[in-house]
Amino acid sequence: MVLAEYIVMATHNQGKIKELKLLLADTNLKLLSLADFPELGPLEETGQTFRENARQKAETVAKATGLVAIADDSGLEVDALQGAPGVYSARFAGKEADDEANNAKLLQCLAHTPQDKRTARFRSVIAIAKPSGECYFAEGTCEGSIGFRPKGSNGFGYDPLFIVQGDKRTLAEFSIEEKNKISHRGKALREAKDILLQVLQ
Amino acid sequence: MVLAEYIVMATHNQGKIKELKLLLADTNLKLLSLADFPELGPLEETGQTFRENARQKAETVAKATGLVAIADDSGLEVDALQGAPGVYSARFAGKEADDEANNAKLLQCLAHTPQDKRTARFRSVIAIAKPSGECYFAEGTCEGSIGFRPKGSNGFGYDPLFIVQGDKRTLAEFSIEEKNKISHRGKALREAKDILLQVLQ
Repeated sequence: MVLAEYIVMATHNQGKIKELKLLLADTNLKLLSLADFPELGPLEETGQTFRENARQKAETVAKATGLVAIADDSGLEVDALQGAPGVYSARFAGKEADDEANNAKLLQCLAHTPQDKRTARFRSVIAIAKPSGECYFAEGTCEGSIGFRPKGSNGFGYDPLFIVQGDKRTLAEFSIEEKNKISHRGKALREAKDILLQVLQ
Repeated sequence: MVLAEYIVMATHNQGKIKELKLLLADTNLKLLSLADFPELGPLEETGQTFRENARQKAETVAKATGLVAIADDSGLEVDALQGAPGVYSARFAGKEADDEANNAKLLQCLAHTPQDKRTARFRSVIAIAKPSGECYFAEGTCEGSIGFRPKGSNGFGYDPLFIVQGDKRTLAEFSIEEKNKISHRGKALREAKDILLQVLQ
């Protein structure tokens, strides 16, 4: 592999694109995104698992573009809620819900759950699909528990409620560099990078 | 922490004990096992998830011994079987089943499943319990697919049927060093070591 190789990330999320670009900076891979393929339109996410959603998006984009495509799906699993909100993490409080509404709903669901029963984890699954049909996966988790009130202003989503295992801080109180080291997405992305380099050999 | 600290692994499996001992060789942690506490008797594993089983074993042993206890539960999740055999991996073909019987049953269940639908992963969850009641978790996965016949003589369990993602070989064709780098248990154990050192500070 001598020339730059183009791959495409099946997302419009600028934060995710930037993150993967940074991780691929020391390779000859060039990252495109859905912004480069406006004809594709919105991608479906109808799966019952993170894996199904990530696969669905990666395979659709790989097939449509003829390039290796990478897609992720992530969410929060709360043990006292039997794994909810899971694949519904982004729309826990409704289809148009924002982070604040989702966090409020989570606190409400756990209002009568004591601290030692509030264990939870973030999970991220990344799918890497080749136009020829093969699909590869990477997965990462970040263990913790759900606090009783939001704390911290970094991050997004449920970060202000998520107390990191072995720490007293929520994920929203971690710096971005600290978070990348321990986060579900950080772990899954580093594994995905290894797969990409192997797949594209 | 200056003196050696004793921790206990909630298993009788000599292979697992040896593996963790090796990983802890550069620390001042000394590893005991269930062999050092014969009065404990067999541990229950009645959970519906790897996490519940690992937690159950670690908490029981931490409580009984007054030491930090570490326990794991692992298994194979086959997508075409909706995640089975999962927590029943060791007894898929019955309570007294050996590796050969379990592998034969898996091949039988997937007899009419084509190669591209035979995706699977090994998952390992490790619980670290303190006598005071706190419990910490580490998790690792190893992605792959189920072959049509056993290959290789290393490893154990479903390894001869498990074709590693991005490789042509089954896990039973990997050397033990190669396997440790990519395996579900290897990943979970390295994360568990970090937690142990943090928890015991």
